[in-house]
Amino acid sequence: MSDYIAPLRDMQFILKELAGLDAIGQLPGCEEASPDLVDAILEEAGKFGAGVLAPINQQGDVQGCTFDNGKVNCPDGWQEAYDQFRESGWIGLSLPPEFGGQGLPKLVSTPVWEMWVSTNMAFSMLPQLNVGQAEALLTAASDELKQTYLHKVVSGEWGSTMNLTEPQAGSDLAATRTRAEPRADGSYRLFGQKIFISYGEHEITENIVHLVLARLPDAPAGVKGISLFVVPKYLVNPDGSLGARNDVRCISIEHKMGIHGSPTCTMSYGDEGGAIGHLVGEPNRGLEYMFIMMNEARFGVGVQGLGLAERAYQQALAYARERVQGRNAVTGESGQPIVHHPDVKRMLLTMKARILAMRSLLYTAAGWFDQAHHSTDQAAADKYRRFIDLLMPIAKGWSTEVGNDVCDDAIQVFGGMGFVEETGIAQPFRDARIITIYEGTTGIQANDLVGRKILRENGATLREVLVDIRAVAAELRADSELAALGAVLEADASDLEASLDWLLANGRERLDQVLAGAVPFLHQLGTVCGSWQMGRLALAARRLQAGGDASPYLAGLLSVVRVWFGQLAPQAGALARVVQNGGDAIAEGVDAAF
Amino acid sequence: MSDYIAPLRDMQFILKELAGLDAIGQLPGCEEASPDLVDAILEEAGKFGAGVLAPINQQGDVQGCTFDNGKVNCPDGWQEAYDQFRESGWIGLSLPPEFGGQGLPKLVSTPVWEMWVSTNMAFSMLPQLNVGQAEALLTAASDELKQTYLHKVVSGEWGSTMNLTEPQAGSDLAATRTRAEPRADGSYRLFGQKIFISYGEHEITENIVHLVLARLPDAPAGVKGISLFVVPKYLVNPDGSLGARNDVRCISIEHKMGIHGSPTCTMSYGDEGGAIGHLVGEPNRGLEYMFIMMNEARFGVGVQGLGLAERAYQQALAYARERVQGRNAVTGESGQPIVHHPDVKRMLLTMKARILAMRSLLYTAAGWFDQAHHSTDQAAADKYRRFIDLLMPIAKGWSTEVGNDVCDDAIQVFGGMGFVEETGIAQPFRDARIITIYEGTTGIQANDLVGRKILRENGATLREVLVDIRAVAAELRADSELAALGAVLEADASDLEASLDWLLANGRERLDQVLAGAVPFLHQLGTVCGSWQMGRLALAARRLQAGGDASPYLAGLLSVVRVWFGQLAPQAGALARVVQNGGDAIAEGVDAAF
Repeated sequence: MSDYIAPLRDMQFILKELAGLDAIGQLPGCEEASPDLVDAILEEAGKFGAGVLAPINQQGDVQGCTFDNGKVNCPDGWQEAYDQFRESGWIGLSLPPEFGGQGLPKLVSTPVWEMWVSTNMAFSMLPQLNVGQAEALLTAASDELKQTYLHKVVSGEWGSTMNLTEPQAGSDLAATRTRAEPRADGSYRLFGQKIFISYGEHEITENIVHLVLARLPDAPAGVKGISLFVVPKYLVNPDGSLGARNDVRCISIEHKMGIHGSPTCTMSYGDEGGAIGHLVGEPNRGLEYMFIMMNEARFGVGVQGLGLAERAYQQALAYARERVQGRNAVTGESGQPIVHHPDVKRMLLTMKARILAMRSLLYTAAGWFDQAHHSTDQAAADKYRRFIDLLMPIAKGWSTEVGNDVCDDAIQVFGGMGFVEETGIAQPFRDARIITIYEGTTGIQANDLVGRKILRENGATLREVLVDIRAVAAELRADSELAALGAVLEADASDLEASLDWLLANGRERLDQVLAGAVPFLHQLGTVCGSWQMGRLALAARRLQAGGDASPYLAGLLSVVRVWFGQLAPQAGALARVVQNGGDAIAEGVDAAF
Repeated sequence: MSDYIAPLRDMQFILKELAGLDAIGQLPGCEEASPDLVDAILEEAGKFGAGVLAPINQQGDVQGCTFDNGKVNCPDGWQEAYDQFRESGWIGLSLPPEFGGQGLPKLVSTPVWEMWVSTNMAFSMLPQLNVGQAEALLTAASDELKQTYLHKVVSGEWGSTMNLTEPQAGSDLAATRTRAEPRADGSYRLFGQKIFISYGEHEITENIVHLVLARLPDAPAGVKGISLFVVPKYLVNPDGSLGARNDVRCISIEHKMGIHGSPTCTMSYGDEGGAIGHLVGEPNRGLEYMFIMMNEARFGVGVQGLGLAERAYQQALAYARERVQGRNAVTGESGQPIVHHPDVKRMLLTMKARILAMRSLLYTAAGWFDQAHHSTDQAAADKYRRFIDLLMPIAKGWSTEVGNDVCDDAIQVFGGMGFVEETGIAQPFRDARIITIYEGTTGIQANDLVGRKILRENGATLREVLVDIRAVAAELRADSELAALGAVLEADASDLEASLDWLLANGRERLDQVLAGAVPFLHQLGTVCGSWQMGRLALAARRLQAGGDASPYLAGLLSVVRVWFGQLAPQAGALARVVQNGGDAIAEGVDAAF
């Protein structure tokens, strides 16, 4: 397997030229993010990923996790890598200095997490859970709970989990049954079973902090009766030392298609009298807190699509440059590596184009997060918040679908060797298969996009986005070299607006048709967002060229942008037809059709 | 896991109404294929697949094959299932009665093989190799070789293998190095290593007959110096009894992503003085013989795409009808199975539509085979031969790509349970990943389609196909209920013709651009072929309705056809744009772009 090489130049280009790193480094609270520090962090993260995480990735896949009478063993090397990871302070990168973090903007932590995923996705889920949990506690927990748990969670001395799913409550958390009974001292006893709990049990950290959704005795039915609890594996004494083992245990782990190094646990609460927990925030607001955190988690899963795609691309490119097979179709020469075959070149360049489109969109969105949180210009902050809310289903749903496609093409580049596990290219493909499912399937993302966002606000934010897209199209058209791309983007914007108008016109009367078109619409919007960002990439490259930069790097970027517009962008038009004309056949599909 | 239910009604409908079963049953040599016999065969095969092969499929995946010092062990149950399979005479279904077969047309054996794949693809590869080898020997072997080997291969007493690939010779067989040295008695000694040999070694049959590509000492370089040899595992005495162990052995097996029940062997020939073999046909014509057989093998791999898709669809549908989750988006009702959610319904109905399109195309093509081989109308026979030659890359390349997509969607329907191996829906997805690779990758199929077929004959056969497609479009337009579909098909035919014209206009000057568009063109042509066949399906259903058949089945078919045209057909237009405008960005992609 080829070595991982952090794509620092692409990362830095997008951070600076597209995502506004300089401006974000000047926002109040983000001053630490100086260009020099950011460069140094990215370089260090690249070294850490390549040197510590990548070498144990395939072994983690082969060895997997084992379950032995309540005890879960992670693969060899996990403990040592985690200790190094924690000691290097990576977990707290974007968390508040008050609790031991470094307080850097999301724009800086995003490429860093991309690297953890590229080099070892199964491992990266362990510290990622700490970040998600810290954000949940910061949002909703009392000062006392924060003081008890946050330092240890931010430092990584304790591990973290999120307990949402139950056998009958997957996508539909309204069906949650785990219950919490109040105790006299203000704590609670929890009873119930949770499934699909990543890193629910392991020996890597001295304690594990579970965040658990459960119902209070008097809670209303449905989603408005769910509360959030913190339940430690070992109870925490008032002085912060660890006390007795709590009544929570892992009763089995799943045998999965991928991410073998990440244990997926079934957790049982309260088999011996009740697991002691503490209410986080107010009663019955658990789902609301979870959704705040879930937006961040969904963004993180989108980054997994990018990270896996990058790694699979690097492996496929290395193989294609090495593997000699066949003759050059044009010159007839033999003895050439397969990267020169037109179809292999097509696969690799379209992989690269999709990666740059995803990275541009995700880093740009990370910048929106930081602007929304830190900008002193309230109007700007509000706009960025609206953009994030609207496009989060794209960041998650579209990036994970595209990430899967890229990993699939990587296997195809390897040919027969791609099907052989030793090559290592099957692993990102298998690992990637979960990302369109967890934290809300693509279907859930699409329903969220169309139902909760676009229909509810009558398409207002998407029209704002369309204004920005059309501005990029106009800039492209003004550049004779890019004018053809501008025309494509302009047409795509019109197709997108037509789909939007169709959704709005039919959202009430034909909701079933509209929702049958939700996933195609997600793909259409994702593709147009890709074209929008690739257009911005082209404009940035041309600006630098106009300023005298004649580096081949810029020519390379422009070449990839042309591949995007020639090969990927055309999908948007077909998807518009499916959105607008394809839903009725689904809605009217008769029982005998199945 | 849900039980397999043979889709007999769909199969019979397509056989009779689309693929011309009645007409083929009247061709000379095909008279056995009476409607009653065909129905009985399909029913028996469905029972055999469901009762014998399906029950050992998941176990075969979990257990896999093991290699122990030259010996290969197949999963538990393989031996018993094979013995029953062989004794039931399934191997010889379409092979000549002269050697013990039943001599039935390919149109009849095609749905039967679809069922073997649906119920146990890894197992089905074992008897499928016998069929392929029998066809190769029938094509090229001397009477003596035929008498020695064919009876045992057709009966299945002996197993079969095809030995093409070497480490340096994958897609490019010109690089074959295995050599054959003549011996005084007219036989040869073979020396070399072959990789990726399915069922290269096992204990299931008393002997294994290897067909091996190798070079004679005086052979010209490249593809014109490759000969075909038969090399038995145990030498065969003049009286037909088994003699000494030959100098061929398995030295390792691959650890693969899927088809775990099918051992993939590295075979070493001649480590101890040379493996004894016999030349098949004439010297240096081995590749030609292999290509005759490979056309049949490629068709068989296309059927694998269909068979896996059918099985994955059945499992997903059963799960979606059982799994209760969420509320109905339109009525607000809870407690409904997920099949009623618009996006799940969309996934299932588009799966079904793709399956019917593949099945219609593959069975229709099987009918062309039979017509080409048996028709006494020479002009008709020639036309069908041209159609098969042109569309074989679609039957293989497009059906395998679509089969993968359907298996992917099946996992998505299962949500989180789809990623858990015990559910069984990961298996068809993993098994399917090889089918776009072996017997020529999708890229190889597309190069064959564009380079060897369309450019070489200046698009003549594709224009004949377009005439037939437009005739179907005209028929659809003449039916007020189907007129809109006819308009789509008409437009798709024009887009296809535009792509064809573009390929022909640029084939000489811009071959690199043209070949960069070969896979998108394969998808475009495949999609239009799907629309063509779905249009025929609709016309057949309407004919029966006009004749007074008011069954819900016909309404169901028409419903699925509308799903095809609303959801799948629109891709063709986008692909036309990629073919015609996307190749230059690939051809001109600069090194710095990677």
